[in-house]
Amino acid sequence: MKGVYFDNASTSWPKAPGVASEMAGYLENIGCNVGRGSYERAYTVARKVYDTREKLCSLFDGEDNKNVIFTANVTQAVNMVLKGFLRQGDHVLISGLEHNAVVRPLEHLKRVGVTYDVIPCDNLGNLEIACIEKMIKPETKAVVMTHGSNVSGSILPIEAVGRICRSQGLYFIVDAAQTAGLHDISMKRANISALCFTGHKGLMGPQGIGGFLVTDDLAEQMDPLLYGGTGSVSDQLDMPDFLPDRFEAGTLNLPGIYGLSSALDYLCSVDKSELLMVEERLTSTFIRGVEAIDGLRLVGNVDIQSRCALVSVECLTRDNAQIAFELDRDYGIMTRVGMHCAPLAHRTLGTYPQGTLRFSFNHFNTQGEVAYALEALQKLTAE
Amino acid sequence: MKGVYFDNASTSWPKAPGVASEMAGYLENIGCNVGRGSYERAYTVARKVYDTREKLCSLFDGEDNKNVIFTANVTQAVNMVLKGFLRQGDHVLISGLEHNAVVRPLEHLKRVGVTYDVIPCDNLGNLEIACIEKMIKPETKAVVMTHGSNVSGSILPIEAVGRICRSQGLYFIVDAAQTAGLHDISMKRANISALCFTGHKGLMGPQGIGGFLVTDDLAEQMDPLLYGGTGSVSDQLDMPDFLPDRFEAGTLNLPGIYGLSSALDYLCSVDKSELLMVEERLTSTFIRGVEAIDGLRLVGNVDIQSRCALVSVECLTRDNAQIAFELDRDYGIMTRVGMHCAPLAHRTLGTYPQGTLRFSFNHFNTQGEVAYALEALQKLTAE
Repeated sequence: MKGVYFDNASTSWPKAPGVASEMAGYLENIGCNVGRGSYERAYTVARKVYDTREKLCSLFDGEDNKNVIFTANVTQAVNMVLKGFLRQGDHVLISGLEHNAVVRPLEHLKRVGVTYDVIPCDNLGNLEIACIEKMIKPETKAVVMTHGSNVSGSILPIEAVGRICRSQGLYFIVDAAQTAGLHDISMKRANISALCFTGHKGLMGPQGIGGFLVTDDLAEQMDPLLYGGTGSVSDQLDMPDFLPDRFEAGTLNLPGIYGLSSALDYLCSVDKSELLMVEERLTSTFIRGVEAIDGLRLVGNVDIQSRCALVSVECLTRDNAQIAFELDRDYGIMTRVGMHCAPLAHRTLGTYPQGTLRFSFNHFNTQGEVAYALEALQKLTAE
Repeated sequence: MKGVYFDNASTSWPKAPGVASEMAGYLENIGCNVGRGSYERAYTVARKVYDTREKLCSLFDGEDNKNVIFTANVTQAVNMVLKGFLRQGDHVLISGLEHNAVVRPLEHLKRVGVTYDVIPCDNLGNLEIACIEKMIKPETKAVVMTHGSNVSGSILPIEAVGRICRSQGLYFIVDAAQTAGLHDISMKRANISALCFTGHKGLMGPQGIGGFLVTDDLAEQMDPLLYGGTGSVSDQLDMPDFLPDRFEAGTLNLPGIYGLSSALDYLCSVDKSELLMVEERLTSTFIRGVEAIDGLRLVGNVDIQSRCALVSVECLTRDNAQIAFELDRDYGIMTRVGMHCAPLAHRTLGTYPQGTLRFSFNHFNTQGEVAYALEALQKLTAE
């Protein structure tokens, strides 16, 4: 039985060519930590880390290489940004499609007097952007928003929201977990103050490495979340006051950085818009197929332009989880079912508390695999 | 020119056999995230994660597999523990040999009204254990202590300190960055409430994965530091109230866990006490050699039983950093020079602010390499 991997929104697979061998090569042939002033091999590693920051800064049109901060994943990045600058009395706006990586830190921050309101989205996942200006209060400090929903696949209009943030003097924090990679993201054009990303989804690197890019303006307002050794100004008991060291305590995930670096090289070597079209065609075929199956309801928009390559469906005839189980057992099709860590999004989309069955693609998937899945869904929902 | 790697206290190298290929194999052949209830391959990964917790629980004689929490490194682990349970008005005791991974979080916690005092060590790195009971105040909550100093190599008597903590009703937090691996550590015997470790030093796994083992008793007092998706009770906006999920938000570093798991298998397959003796003999040869060189001063104790396999020296005739540079350039010997992120330890040992030149070994090093380094040091210090 062939294996068909349709869980790329959880983590992409296969990874970019070369990721695994680059990591193994680092561990076998180099292995050391970055080091300031001890030996040449450590400089080689330091250069790789620097180059990787540079590639990320260039990909996301950030302010400067030093403003690229590495973390373990996007959740840690969001926590560091939100807990870093929000203070008692502050208020933020979020979208109705946020993941728990945004909602849970904000719920926790309520304890210290931070509040938030939810900018509504319709039940197809479209942001009601006209609401934003009316929702801004004197104490509103920021808009915090996902770029692409991990439930409905909706792409939110970050450039339009960024313009509002600029005109209203708000910070704009974007969670690019689902879009960093093939999708075009410019921090400058979208007026983004902090862009949180993970290395293992659209960037096609390994799990364990992510980060955020931050403007100097926002960084100056942020306290670190983690304190410890940085290999710099080590005689000081405070964290350094310069980037990236201020937000990077402890040993970096160097195998992860080598892997991510290799993935970024792959992304630079391909025609991203061509690969995005491959993903769009897969998504489009799948959506059309879902609409033709009686026992399924499509969640979210049919418009392919405002979607990333993931599609949630609801089974109307049988339990979603049972379908997911049988897709794997009988057809080797790997999907994800349930709440996808985003109950707020499910409430918005009308799929709470039952959740959805999610299919997520990358450009290594084929039209044949999509046809095979549709055939399987046709059979399973008719049973 | 041969390369001699004497920077194992920063990160061990080479890694345990199989670490790199295990990580590459996971990325190439499996690649998916853990998943509750979606597809079989995700269960395979979940089992690996569970097994790795089990191996760590067994190695450190912890309470239960679920009490093993993964983090990106030991610094994150220490931050999560200290910021998790210390509240305004609390007081802790630390040793005079602590790394900035302990000191910087505590300095930060001063802002919320947490205070700390330093249990003195003599200038050889011996803990003045008799002082502890006199230093305990009504508001003292815990002793926080490194097991092995990353500057002097001193091993602190954690079992004796643990007995004091038990009798005084204090939590005992141990930073095992330098000792986790070959050194015998029993949380139960040493009455340790939280044991913080990293995977890439003595455990011989990759950078990017570490964690802590915590007792239920302490875990109940701890708030999470990171909030986000856990794949469990996803409809709740609070973090789950059970371990390990309560302290593990976001995607785990799965390549790192596969690598660490492979390293733990290696450590289980060898005679740890035999390998520890190999390291002790290397350290002993090096110390005797250093004592015979006029231009060098040994930092710390000569007693090999109370040491881990790292030795700091001070060059009396020339600049430490210049010697480190020439050791690398002219002899291919990789060492580390400076403050080693532990200014408090240098103040204790009388090597502040100049720092030290540090040689750190593992059992893959040879007596021939040690002899070669001593010869090089003889020549360089005589210049």
